[in-house]
Amino acid sequence: MITIVVPEHQPGEAGVAVSDRGLAYGDGLFETILIRCGQPQLLQAHCQRLLEGAARLGIPLREDELTPAVRRACALMDATTDRQVLKLLLTRGSGGRGYRPPAEPEPRLIISVTPAPPAPPESGVKAIISEIPLTVNPMLAGIKSLNRLEQVMASRSIPEDCYEALMCGDQGDLREGTRTGLLFRWQGQWWTPPRDRVAVRSIMVAHVERGLAREGIPLREGLLYPEQCWQPEFGGLLLLNSLIGAIPVQALNGRELPLPEQLATIVSLAKQPEEFR
Amino acid sequence: MITIVVPEHQPGEAGVAVSDRGLAYGDGLFETILIRCGQPQLLQAHCQRLLEGAARLGIPLREDELTPAVRRACALMDATTDRQVLKLLLTRGSGGRGYRPPAEPEPRLIISVTPAPPAPPESGVKAIISEIPLTVNPMLAGIKSLNRLEQVMASRSIPEDCYEALMCGDQGDLREGTRTGLLFRWQGQWWTPPRDRVAVRSIMVAHVERGLAREGIPLREGLLYPEQCWQPEFGGLLLLNSLIGAIPVQALNGRELPLPEQLATIVSLAKQPEEFR
Repeated sequence: MITIVVPEHQPGEAGVAVSDRGLAYGDGLFETILIRCGQPQLLQAHCQRLLEGAARLGIPLREDELTPAVRRACALMDATTDRQVLKLLLTRGSGGRGYRPPAEPEPRLIISVTPAPPAPPESGVKAIISEIPLTVNPMLAGIKSLNRLEQVMASRSIPEDCYEALMCGDQGDLREGTRTGLLFRWQGQWWTPPRDRVAVRSIMVAHVERGLAREGIPLREGLLYPEQCWQPEFGGLLLLNSLIGAIPVQALNGRELPLPEQLATIVSLAKQPEEFR
Repeated sequence: MITIVVPEHQPGEAGVAVSDRGLAYGDGLFETILIRCGQPQLLQAHCQRLLEGAARLGIPLREDELTPAVRRACALMDATTDRQVLKLLLTRGSGGRGYRPPAEPEPRLIISVTPAPPAPPESGVKAIISEIPLTVNPMLAGIKSLNRLEQVMASRSIPEDCYEALMCGDQGDLREGTRTGLLFRWQGQWWTPPRDRVAVRSIMVAHVERGLAREGIPLREGLLYPEQCWQPEFGGLLLLNSLIGAIPVQALNGRELPLPEQLATIVSLAKQPEEFR
């Protein structure tokens, strides 16, 4: 494995070979990790998703190579900055015949640090339903691959006063945001869209689920159709990811949504650090 | 537009910024052009597909920038080599907030030259039907984007004695090869899968179609289900792309296929150069 570490003050300096398969075909994966005062948050879960994705794609990646490389990069970071973002970008490296990968790929791991984007208001955000349909190949479902053009296209349509675009799956159901997983309240219970059908399995949804389980509160899986959001059984919608934690959607396509019961519980579970190795 | 030209003898020298959105999200497009003795083949059609794709993705690209840049790169090439490959890789460049592109992207165009892969035998090749389903987002259908992980995954399963894996669309129909478009013969007519539903619209299929039209032979659009390949109305299957022209599939999943009538016509139309600007 070739590891390239890009420090925050030199973002333009490092280059990746133009023959890299990550660039050529999106043949790779990435993770975006929140760093608080030099400490990576939910590091084990991020590394696990990257390892699972690499196994699915057949990119050789060993945990005992990955974790130390990330830890070494974190050690170089400024421990006095509250919020930074560590990005891990893994590619299958160069080589192969066209789409066909080489028999023994030499992957590249690019570790870079950027300032954290401004946090959205805790009171909630507005969202729209994207007109870009989400297509999820069952062979690639859940992994955070570099094939993210649908999310890019959906992002382009987010109005200035909105934070997120929700993308609909093949049933017309609200599957996930461009960069967030969903939790919603229906008939007094917590639900999330089926995790074997999302494009990217959310680490923050799984983190909150473990927290809910400790409090004896189940998280169910089910489809959410847009029209359900205006029915009396609907009790609110949350966006989750590693950088923002959990925030409620105040309005969807310009129509107000209820704020969920137990909102404070979810927000606090999302903030709860998890022990990492 | 930033243009990077990578000469054939220096493939490892050039680098792309790690912040490039082509690498990060597959936010870009590419074209693979056959060069014969320094002359690009079907250049106008390739540039047109790239321009159409760029317009679809909202990447600013002007024809009067693109064509001269490609011509200048071709002028540097060795005019004595019969077959080389010119690759155009266009990305949205760097910048933006996560998936969301910058308002005024500065695209990168990477032009590189590689030796042509060995040509498959004109007598035909073996193919398999891939188990990786093809998912085609209607918003991205037909453009040759950098999101090609499905094709990479399907390529991994091609046995050594096979040339191509055919991918099935959402109806279970044979839509296209990983790197080839399809022509097939059914009830004594030429057909191709519906071009608004393929992942990559084939320039060679369109080239052959124009040639057929000049001879008064129509090309129809229709679905091809695998089981049709063993019915008496079926008259053979061809793989097409810019590098190989047109070649017949001799056997699919180990079962022999008929060689099509008018095979020589199609092969010869595929080889016919087209005037370029």
